[in-house]
Amino acid sequence: MPLTARVEAHKVRWGILGCGWIASVFTKDLLVDPATRGVYDVQHIVQAAGSSSSLDKAKEFLADVGAPDSRAYGSYGELVADPNVDIIYVATPHSHHFANALLALNAGKHVVCEKPFTVNAEQTKILVKLARAKKLFLMEAVWTRFFPLSIAVREYVKRGQIGAVKRVIADLSLPQAPETHFADSHRMVNPDLAGGCLLDLGLYPLTWVYQILYHTQPEESRKAPSITGSMNLYRTGVDDNTVVVCTWPDTIGIATTNLYVATDPSAIGTPCVKIQGTGGEIQVAHPAYRPTKVTVIRGIGPEAVTESSEFPMPPGHGTHWEADAAARCLRDGKLEDDMMPLEESIVIMEAMDKVREISGLRYPESIESLEQ
Amino acid sequence: MPLTARVEAHKVRWGILGCGWIASVFTKDLLVDPATRGVYDVQHIVQAAGSSSSLDKAKEFLADVGAPDSRAYGSYGELVADPNVDIIYVATPHSHHFANALLALNAGKHVVCEKPFTVNAEQTKILVKLARAKKLFLMEAVWTRFFPLSIAVREYVKRGQIGAVKRVIADLSLPQAPETHFADSHRMVNPDLAGGCLLDLGLYPLTWVYQILYHTQPEESRKAPSITGSMNLYRTGVDDNTVVVCTWPDTIGIATTNLYVATDPSAIGTPCVKIQGTGGEIQVAHPAYRPTKVTVIRGIGPEAVTESSEFPMPPGHGTHWEADAAARCLRDGKLEDDMMPLEESIVIMEAMDKVREISGLRYPESIESLEQ
Repeated sequence: MPLTARVEAHKVRWGILGCGWIASVFTKDLLVDPATRGVYDVQHIVQAAGSSSSLDKAKEFLADVGAPDSRAYGSYGELVADPNVDIIYVATPHSHHFANALLALNAGKHVVCEKPFTVNAEQTKILVKLARAKKLFLMEAVWTRFFPLSIAVREYVKRGQIGAVKRVIADLSLPQAPETHFADSHRMVNPDLAGGCLLDLGLYPLTWVYQILYHTQPEESRKAPSITGSMNLYRTGVDDNTVVVCTWPDTIGIATTNLYVATDPSAIGTPCVKIQGTGGEIQVAHPAYRPTKVTVIRGIGPEAVTESSEFPMPPGHGTHWEADAAARCLRDGKLEDDMMPLEESIVIMEAMDKVREISGLRYPESIESLEQ
Repeated sequence: MPLTARVEAHKVRWGILGCGWIASVFTKDLLVDPATRGVYDVQHIVQAAGSSSSLDKAKEFLADVGAPDSRAYGSYGELVADPNVDIIYVATPHSHHFANALLALNAGKHVVCEKPFTVNAEQTKILVKLARAKKLFLMEAVWTRFFPLSIAVREYVKRGQIGAVKRVIADLSLPQAPETHFADSHRMVNPDLAGGCLLDLGLYPLTWVYQILYHTQPEESRKAPSITGSMNLYRTGVDDNTVVVCTWPDTIGIATTNLYVATDPSAIGTPCVKIQGTGGEIQVAHPAYRPTKVTVIRGIGPEAVTESSEFPMPPGHGTHWEADAAARCLRDGKLEDDMMPLEESIVIMEAMDKVREISGLRYPESIESLEQ
């Protein structure tokens, strides 16, 4: 038994706000024994779950994920009022994140909010300001950042293993031609739910661009890039093909996403992220959101040395690492996590705002609203 | 002996304006027997070459390429005045294309001008207007378009072999860190010679974007895309890292180029062009300017069928196909070639102008000048 296991694990009691697909993924991950991923210092308790539609829905959800004895609520208000809940995981469609996270913070709860944080950067700023005023923990649940694979890649870059990084190209495109895959009311293409590929898929390539070109910079000298980009708009008015170009003085990041084509059309593990340096390249195999393979090319030319590493997923889907990080922050009294700092969430939301502005994509006022 | 060989080949007498590297490549290609590439209907005669610096330079050039008996001139003015020259190939640095092509057209010669056509779109427009007024043939020497490989790829796309094309991503990046590879006066980075990666390298990925997303459209309905993009600027003020995003209503093309990183770092034939459709993908292996391998993925997913085709280069470097095309136009009395129409050259020059404008890259007035 490892040494760390002798220290009692810090227990965090979660309240799950929303009972849809991602809530189920996350909650099941909370219920996986952390020891299976080598984690002994924190533990997760699924204290409660709340559905906005009915108590039965919440009960059914808890039974389904394997936590039938946890508390079920038929409203979000009741959930966030539960004195035994330490932290709320916001798992609703992103059109609703702002309102739901506000509710939880106002109830005095710490919050982990699914990505994308909100619909626009101003909403995120309001949440951040509120959390800081109330001394509550707040984090955008960009799970990919917390993977051992991501941590390793950031380390490779920081150690200069591919020289100076000059460009990052990242893509997440899934062939789901909306005409045949989604009704116009589906969340992927429905403007009322902030549909489109940028917010849902594009956040992942953007995560790679920023975690390499921005996050690996010393914190005090990180500068937001200038942003341009473009979109094709689907018949419902949301984007189905988007490019975001992030330009720093010496580097450029290109994040792309598309609802019609495949990053990896022949399912052979095509690189979805290329981190290109003066002395080589790091390639991350598709998919950008949950990669398990990294190839490092050291040197350039026929003598370059190519080495691939696998990062197999331990039991669970992979959202548990962000939960572990949040639990450690709560244990240590930290109000935000270094891997996904609030300031960086804002900078990325601003990039998405900018490309939408360039392309004339604005969601209905009801969900762009800053009303608290 | 093939049937076509019985018809006498149409002979075109070339005058080579400029005696540098690309002049040598092109002239040697002119001297390759067209039969080695299956061409019997046209023939090329290297009638003369002109150097702006000295007669000896032109003589040396002609001896070196294997045409010691051709006429040598110590000035461009004498070259374009030679009544035995039908067509001038402009092979000077691109900062000088405008003036040199003007000189040739004004002397009543047909012109093939190396890529990029000129330094800006306005210069190209002046050349086009003049050529049309004088009923002279004019073409930008974008050799890659004339390769059997390019023709095949355009056919695949037109026949819908990968469904509807939604995105083209094309890159030409060569790891030539300018600090160590070039003096600041070198043409690659010298603003006085319109240095930087966009005009020299970026034209190739742009060629792929346009020959797929623009050129395969019916001629009457071709529309110029909206353009955005960005650049990093080198210490000399020219670009060393550039992205051009071309947006049509239903498709996006992304052309990238960089002087620090490699498109194909481990020299394994990494795709430099990805033509992504709803039913598969076409990949062209590096390099974008002279590719010899195409992979077509039909279908999406594990059942997709992947097929690679080689297009080995026949004797010569590969600029002979554009020369053949020009010769056929002269034979047929055509003033421009369908594969590289003048209007399309202008549209692409406008895209490059736009990205330079966005990034504040302007060459010295002497070479941006429209003075005739």
